[in-house]
Amino acid sequence: MKIFLAQQNYHIGNFEANTNKIIAAIEEAKKQGGDLIVFSELSVCGYPPRDFLEFNDFIEQGLACIDRIRQVADTIGVLVGCPSRNPKIEGKDLFNSAYLLYEKEIKGIVHKTLLPNYDIFDEYRYFEPAYEWNVLTFKGKRLAVTICEDIWNLGDDPLYRICPMDELIKHQPDIMINLSASPFDYIHEDGRKGIVRRNVVKYNLPMVYCNTIGSQTEIVFDGGSLVMNANGDLLTEMPYFTESMASVTWNDDGTFTDGVVRTADTIHTADPLPATFEPLKNIEKIHSALILGIRDYFGKMGFKKAIVASSGGIDSAVVLALACEALGSENVSALLLPSQFSTSHSVSDAEQLSKNLDNHYDIIPIENVFKAYEGALQNVFSGLPFNVAEENLQSRIRGAMVMALSNKFGSILLNTSNKSELATGYGTLYGDMAGGLGVLGDLYKMQVYAVARYINRDKEIIPQNIIDKAPSAELRHDQKDSDSLPEYDVLDPILYQYIERRQGPKEIVSIGNDPALVTRILKLVNNNEYKRNQFCPIIRVSPKAFGVGRRVPIVGKYLS
Amino acid sequence: MKIFLAQQNYHIGNFEANTNKIIAAIEEAKKQGGDLIVFSELSVCGYPPRDFLEFNDFIEQGLACIDRIRQVADTIGVLVGCPSRNPKIEGKDLFNSAYLLYEKEIKGIVHKTLLPNYDIFDEYRYFEPAYEWNVLTFKGKRLAVTICEDIWNLGDDPLYRICPMDELIKHQPDIMINLSASPFDYIHEDGRKGIVRRNVVKYNLPMVYCNTIGSQTEIVFDGGSLVMNANGDLLTEMPYFTESMASVTWNDDGTFTDGVVRTADTIHTADPLPATFEPLKNIEKIHSALILGIRDYFGKMGFKKAIVASSGGIDSAVVLALACEALGSENVSALLLPSQFSTSHSVSDAEQLSKNLDNHYDIIPIENVFKAYEGALQNVFSGLPFNVAEENLQSRIRGAMVMALSNKFGSILLNTSNKSELATGYGTLYGDMAGGLGVLGDLYKMQVYAVARYINRDKEIIPQNIIDKAPSAELRHDQKDSDSLPEYDVLDPILYQYIERRQGPKEIVSIGNDPALVTRILKLVNNNEYKRNQFCPIIRVSPKAFGVGRRVPIVGKYLS
Repeated sequence: MKIFLAQQNYHIGNFEANTNKIIAAIEEAKKQGGDLIVFSELSVCGYPPRDFLEFNDFIEQGLACIDRIRQVADTIGVLVGCPSRNPKIEGKDLFNSAYLLYEKEIKGIVHKTLLPNYDIFDEYRYFEPAYEWNVLTFKGKRLAVTICEDIWNLGDDPLYRICPMDELIKHQPDIMINLSASPFDYIHEDGRKGIVRRNVVKYNLPMVYCNTIGSQTEIVFDGGSLVMNANGDLLTEMPYFTESMASVTWNDDGTFTDGVVRTADTIHTADPLPATFEPLKNIEKIHSALILGIRDYFGKMGFKKAIVASSGGIDSAVVLALACEALGSENVSALLLPSQFSTSHSVSDAEQLSKNLDNHYDIIPIENVFKAYEGALQNVFSGLPFNVAEENLQSRIRGAMVMALSNKFGSILLNTSNKSELATGYGTLYGDMAGGLGVLGDLYKMQVYAVARYINRDKEIIPQNIIDKAPSAELRHDQKDSDSLPEYDVLDPILYQYIERRQGPKEIVSIGNDPALVTRILKLVNNNEYKRNQFCPIIRVSPKAFGVGRRVPIVGKYLS
Repeated sequence: MKIFLAQQNYHIGNFEANTNKIIAAIEEAKKQGGDLIVFSELSVCGYPPRDFLEFNDFIEQGLACIDRIRQVADTIGVLVGCPSRNPKIEGKDLFNSAYLLYEKEIKGIVHKTLLPNYDIFDEYRYFEPAYEWNVLTFKGKRLAVTICEDIWNLGDDPLYRICPMDELIKHQPDIMINLSASPFDYIHEDGRKGIVRRNVVKYNLPMVYCNTIGSQTEIVFDGGSLVMNANGDLLTEMPYFTESMASVTWNDDGTFTDGVVRTADTIHTADPLPATFEPLKNIEKIHSALILGIRDYFGKMGFKKAIVASSGGIDSAVVLALACEALGSENVSALLLPSQFSTSHSVSDAEQLSKNLDNHYDIIPIENVFKAYEGALQNVFSGLPFNVAEENLQSRIRGAMVMALSNKFGSILLNTSNKSELATGYGTLYGDMAGGLGVLGDLYKMQVYAVARYINRDKEIIPQNIIDKAPSAELRHDQKDSDSLPEYDVLDPILYQYIERRQGPKEIVSIGNDPALVTRILKLVNNNEYKRNQFCPIIRVSPKAFGVGRRVPIVGKYLS
């Protein structure tokens, strides 16, 4: 039996485009003599559809697409994902389902059992879990079809009280097939291969695992679909961060024999999240995720042009370089906004960067506008010293200036705030925190430097001086980040323990950090939730990003 | 048996303050000869604790408080809410629990079964549902203790496949006691009394229902705790939007005889959400919720002073009046920011308003700053006509100016955007969309007018001219809201169908709306999700507010 995997990039709610893409893959597989083609989770509507699922109209549109796809599923079996209605009155109204279409009929439906409801996931908000299990029969074979999370409940601390494959195995399946929408983070690929291997070994069955790719606002799906024999040998590993189709031949003895046979990676028996911060971990993949994140945000929103406020600092340099790679230099412009507090190298470094990248840039000094504000405010501020009000004002002038160009020329402002700044509140709301997409919001400062070095891997794109100089917001004379914050090699590992690893103050101190510093940093993080709450979506590359995956009370008093 | 209900206002994560408040109520009830005192859901840590629950340290602190409270629960029984640990390996690590403390011991624990995971609720993110049920025995009586949602699964379309009271009734309880954290919205009170009545009638048992009050960022809890006899008579209804204690005597025949006996309201057999928009519905309660929302935001964040950008329009007038009532006029200042496009009445109306309210105000014309921007931008904008870029720029100058005062004087900017504007994207990011708290973000424009008239119920606080004149953003000459949007009495009912009632385009057209207009408005709503995503928390007064309770993809293509 020839089985195709279609690793595709869907657009949430764009039923027409998604269905066309699915049908095109089916036609291609039919041409190549395919028996069965497998798509990813909720392929018809895109994942995650979120509260669109609350609209009856949205569900109807999905079901209409299943009807369209059914018409082309004549000589080939199709496994495709779409919400279905729960026929029972009790429980939520929808299931997260996989449809088996064949001979122009719906031959079977299975529903997802384990509904992830942590981090970025909200599936229990919409779906009723499956509570009956059976295999799907196709050409005499018994398929154990599961959806994403359904295969993840193995391990020492299972999150769910039920394990759907334990139920399905009672029906003597011949193969496991999993439809996934499994997002990227810099450790998740390891965990994913490990969990597939655990399943094939435990149930002594081969598995076809089909994942989606593409970025959906903040969540990047990385693909890497795979086929594994029951002995744990990895037969096919599809590419990361790109659409792809692959086929494998499933023999009557139950093994796959084509594909590149290699021994699968080690099984991870515990959470692969490193116990200590590793700023260099998987930087190449993070870079790919950021490129895809920018490209898909623009492509799916229907935008073409980007603008970046280019300060001569490391963050804006990295964003500008990433934007040029993702969108093409001709679609990216930089705006330099020097003030009386800018050092001379701020402008020259930013100019050199744009010359290296070959992107358009403008320079607009903000000093006169700042003076006009000072004039307007002089009565109200009379006798009061320069302080954070004037510092923030400069940042907001820059925000308003770059937004004026954004509005005038239809270019989308890319935000340059990094995770260390967002964590500690070291940024100005409506100033440098403005923008449509947070490119670096899930990278600690040390990771930003690592990406910069990766960008320069073949030649100097980001001027070395930008990498070498001490970080500064340049909102007053001789200001340095380190005036307000500890050095990043101290700060970032503490933030990692608190944010990624959810360690409390006692645990963070116990691994050798200064108690007063830990208290101060955790307080900063919690007290600045109100700022992050108004921040744009952040491209997620870590297992715990700010944004939809981290939900902390603003009005609270905990470690604050 | 004398039973006390303690309807209290907690501060999330502020274990010390919450526990002190709980202990004070216990001591008071002991003085008054109480046998049992009932608190609300998760009283020890405050509700909703959200991702604080992921910190082991947070759970430890809660359990330490239970230990403290246990020491004073000597001669009185105490029912108090706190997270507890799931001793089994399978399933999530926590339960949402109620503790029965008595004779300085933990006499029993019950866990919540039905974990709401819709709208603003995320409980399945943290908690394992209960799967075993038993009554708690206290002084020879059998108490069926449930937590909030547990009693809500009656009706024609139950959300859950299990009903915990159906299990508990098998253990012959003598009474139902429910610990709640049930938020306000302008229809929820009706639904709440209806559901309590359904329960007492179905199970033929009296119920003690204890709710929390207080605002937690965007969610307002309104109290209204109550005691109902098995025949449906309402014995005690505690006040709304304020802390309170009450006691009832539970007789040996199973009835309550003290309290004000009156027949309970009609049982609502269906969703009480009106089929059509009713802009005047429960305006008095909405007003109370907004006052509490402002007051608690400031009190719990440790803020004292507020600032409002006062335009002479209806929205800022209502916000200013509400702020003065909530915080005291002496803590509220207004900033008038006229431009060359402001009409003369904009300033005079805003001045008259502040005189009526007796709050401080400043006037800072923005024309010179706007000219400075024009000068800075003249090369880049050369030859291009005045458009939305310049309109937004004025709004952003105002945003930066009022934030400068906010930063300089430590006053928090109250945002004045209403729900009609937020829905359609009729506002400027970093301009009039700036602020720490969205006071009117859950009120359609017609409801804003209704609140204005309510504020003026005894005397003219908001000048009548502000109420009478046509709404305008005044960002260009002779601009009116109606240039860009339909009249609000057309717009608001369509938005209500889409947002509150989740009706699709077909349904909204079918009740008599113009198809092209419906398409245009729904497209506006969906295309402006990116703006709302960067908006501050909104005080929630409706059953479907923008913010945490409405989660829509930004990068999507549905009705857009």
